[in-house]
Amino acid sequence: MYGSSRVYKKVEVIGVAKESVEAAIQSAVSKAHKTLDKLSWFEVQEVRGHVGDDGMITEYQVVIKVAFELKG
Amino acid sequence: MYGSSRVYKKVEVIGVAKESVEAAIQSAVSKAHKTLDKLSWFEVQEVRGHVGDDGMITEYQVVIKVAFELKG
Amino acid sequence: MYGSSRVYKKVEVIGVAKESVEAAIQSAVSKAHKTLDKLSWFEVQEVRGHVGDDGMITEYQVVIKVAFELKG
Amino acid sequence: MYGSSRVYKKVEVIGVAKESVEAAIQSAVSKAHKTLDKLSWFEVQEVRGHVGDDGMITEYQVVIKVAFELKG
Amino acid sequence: MYGSSRVYKKVEVIGVAKESVEAAIQSAVSKAHKTLDKLSWFEVQEVRGHVGDDGMITEYQVVIKVAFELKG
Amino acid sequence: MYGSSRVYKKVEVIGVAKESVEAAIQSAVSKAHKTLDKLSWFEVQEVRGHVGDDGMITEYQVVIKVAFELKG
Amino acid sequence: MYGSSRVYKKVEVIGVAKESVEAAIQSAVSKAHKTLDKLSWFEVQEVRGHVGDDGMITEYQVVIKVAFELKG
Amino acid sequence: MYGSSRVYKKVEVIGVAKESVEAAIQSAVSKAHKTLDKLSWFEVQEVRGHVGDDGMITEYQVVIKVAFELKG
Amino acid sequence: MYGSSRVYKKVEVIGVAKESVEAAIQSAVSKAHKTLDKLSWFEVQEVRGHVGDDGMITEYQVVIKVAFELKG
Amino acid sequence: MYGSSRVYKKVEVIGVAKESVEAAIQSAVSKAHKTLDKLSWFEVQEVRGHVGDDGMITEYQVVIKVAFELKG
Amino acid sequence: MYGSSRVYKKVEVIGVAKESVEAAIQSAVSKAHKTLDKLSWFEVQEVRGHVGDDGMITEYQVVIKVAFELKG
Amino acid sequence: MYGSSRVYKKVEVIGVAKESVEAAIQSAVSKAHKTLDKLSWFEVQEVRGHVGDDGMITEYQVVIKVAFELKG
Repeated sequence: MYGSSRVYKKVEVIGVAKESVEAAIQSAVSKAHKTLDKLSWFEVQEVRGHVGDDGMITEYQVVIKVAFELKG
Repeated sequence: MYGSSRVYKKVEVIGVAKESVEAAIQSAVSKAHKTLDKLSWFEVQEVRGHVGDDGMITEYQVVIKVAFELKG
Repeated sequence: MYGSSRVYKKVEVIGVAKESVEAAIQSAVSKAHKTLDKLSWFEVQEVRGHVGDDGMITEYQVVIKVAFELKG
Repeated sequence: MYGSSRVYKKVEVIGVAKESVEAAIQSAVSKAHKTLDKLSWFEVQEVRGHVGDDGMITEYQVVIKVAFELKG
Repeated sequence: MYGSSRVYKKVEVIGVAKESVEAAIQSAVSKAHKTLDKLSWFEVQEVRGHVGDDGMITEYQVVIKVAFELKG
Repeated sequence: MYGSSRVYKKVEVIGVAKESVEAAIQSAVSKAHKTLDKLSWFEVQEVRGHVGDDGMITEYQVVIKVAFELKG
Repeated sequence: MYGSSRVYKKVEVIGVAKESVEAAIQSAVSKAHKTLDKLSWFEVQEVRGHVGDDGMITEYQVVIKVAFELKG
Repeated sequence: MYGSSRVYKKVEVIGVAKESVEAAIQSAVSKAHKTLDKLSWFEVQEVRGHVGDDGMITEYQVVIKVAFELKG
Repeated sequence: MYGSSRVYKKVEVIGVAKESVEAAIQSAVSKAHKTLDKLSWFEVQEVRGHVGDDGMITEYQVVIKVAFELKG
Repeated sequence: MYGSSRVYKKVEVIGVAKESVEAAIQSAVSKAHKTLDKLSWFEVQEVRGHVGDDGMITEYQVVIKVAFELKG
Repeated sequence: MYGSSRVYKKVEVIGVAKESVEAAIQSAVSKAHKTLDKLSWFEVQEVRGHVGDDGMITEYQVVIKVAFELKG
Repeated sequence: MYGSSRVYKKVEVIGVAKESVEAAIQSAVSKAHKTLDKLSWFEVQEVRGHVGDDGMITEYQVVIKVAFELKG
């Protein structure tokens, strides 16, 4: 594929999940894959999260950029 | 709301206004709210502006990221 | 034009070309111009590329942000 | 004062206000001044905000660092 | 809660754990929650770790900022 | 004007004002316009300020870059 | 050990693994430990990954710096 | 020359050219060389450009720092 | 010590000294060690200073982060 | 290839060429390809250059990172 | 002085000295003080240096910004 | 030398010394000069250090990049 002309677009999304950083990434990737376009790769920008009243992490919030080929 | 699975998208927009930095942000937020989706929050990236021939600021240009929930 | 209210949107795209950095930028600009909207300007974010088995650069990959006015 | 030995501490706080960026900064400065120590200066780190259902900015959230002299 | 005046403080802490990045974050969050104040959220700054003589990761060291409301 | 050859210079200045961030920017822009050259635009780099003994902001200090065309 | 003269070298490597961010780090650490030198610590620089046609993450790519003592 | 005491100044300029990034750099270097002082080196800070109504790049705008020795 | 669970806190302080950068760091470290807690390490963030009317440096101002273990 | 375990190493090199940014990149890539290992890709870090007494660019100096697979 | 309107300019200079980082800063400050204007403060941007054939540092090159009040 | 084709490599090393920042840099430069190659220049990346139980700095740890020409 290298050497052929092509154009990609990157979009910034934020996934949220209780279990882990990886689950939050997969959550954002799945939604973007379904609503935007067939994705090629992702890049993590920020990892954040919410803390409950008992001091336990209640969710991970991961900001990623996802990339897909611009067709047409 | 914390703890439930959800995905947000961030989009970069630039608002322009004569009066103030806040007016430029509101201008970008209003347009994005109308043409893109119901916004949740914004983050300022850059503040710039144009200067007239008399040395007075003629407009503020504020680059922001706006975020909204990806539904569906 | 300065002093009138208007809003721009920035989108991140990646152009690929064999010849040069400039060709990769033009490739991304042309595609974005056609599929997204009439562009006003671009800003280079990253320059990368692929290397073939013979040690020659086989393509330049240039990540840019393109900006266009949000109408409507 | 320059030339005399002294030590400062910086603390990161976030002020929230409806009216403006300046009001949010003053809000954080006032609280830190009262609960931490007599402040000398502040440095803005980030400007963010929340958007209501009608697309109007409902509050500015400004992250600042405040500095005060470490005595004793 | 949006729209009401309030002030948060951010503190930088480093959690250490053998198992995973998430365990190191939770470790720092738990300690800060107990010794500092009831936390609202965290932001990951850096992920580092130590390597044992056998080339296995012996611990993850995660630098985070934790935020809590400044009362009083 | 786009497409014609021209060269701009950027200079870093700091404006100070009691009232607001915007007043501090205008103060720096006005002085630079008078003592350096006819400015085209500005870019905000940092927003800082001084706090009085009563915990009130006594001045905003805004670091900006100003740009003007290099003639001759 | 602190206080004795010593010199470390840092090398940038990228580990790839299907399971998790931690597995990708361990993969890079193990290889660098075997082919370069006995490592002391690592620092994560970037987390990226590839997405399959079904929208599932097929691998994590983690860019890290590894450090080891320069002997001799 | 290394080892002798000397002082350099850096100035930020922006060159504009239709043909290429290199032409825009040379344009800024030439003007700065003529109007400021005999330059020693340059460092590219940003590459941007303008896009015409037909989607073609109409000019490259390259922000550089140029350095020259401060004599006298 | 590696492999055992522990949590550190980082605090930002600014030391001032006439003689050298090192003296300014030691000044901040000594004060923080006495008023905050027994420190483990420091990281330099910024080096600044004041200049007297005769063009001589009258003091170095060094911004550092100091780290100590969070016990209890 | 995605999904299989592999490790890459990145090395920072600087290429120098009279003609263009691309020629300077190719120069660094060719040398690294010959003396280090078979390269997979490159990432541009900085573009700098030297200016002659006549104000003409005498060479481009491009700092890049090159990446290759760590075998064995 | 705080609270009165004033404007400062920052200029980037590079000092070179054999002995130490501090000597290189003082060298740049002295020259800027003499040829530009009466300086108020400096901020270190980068510390670099040259190495001789015997592996000894032959000079420190320190990039600083110096600031002075814009009068008139 | 400017204008001739050549390639440099940069390597990241960390020097440690009790006395000063300069001694830590020289320590890293000397070791790299001996074990890697004849160095041309260095660039400071980070300055850190360790603090003893008595609050005195026990060592400076300076992360630098060293550069040397890639021959052959």
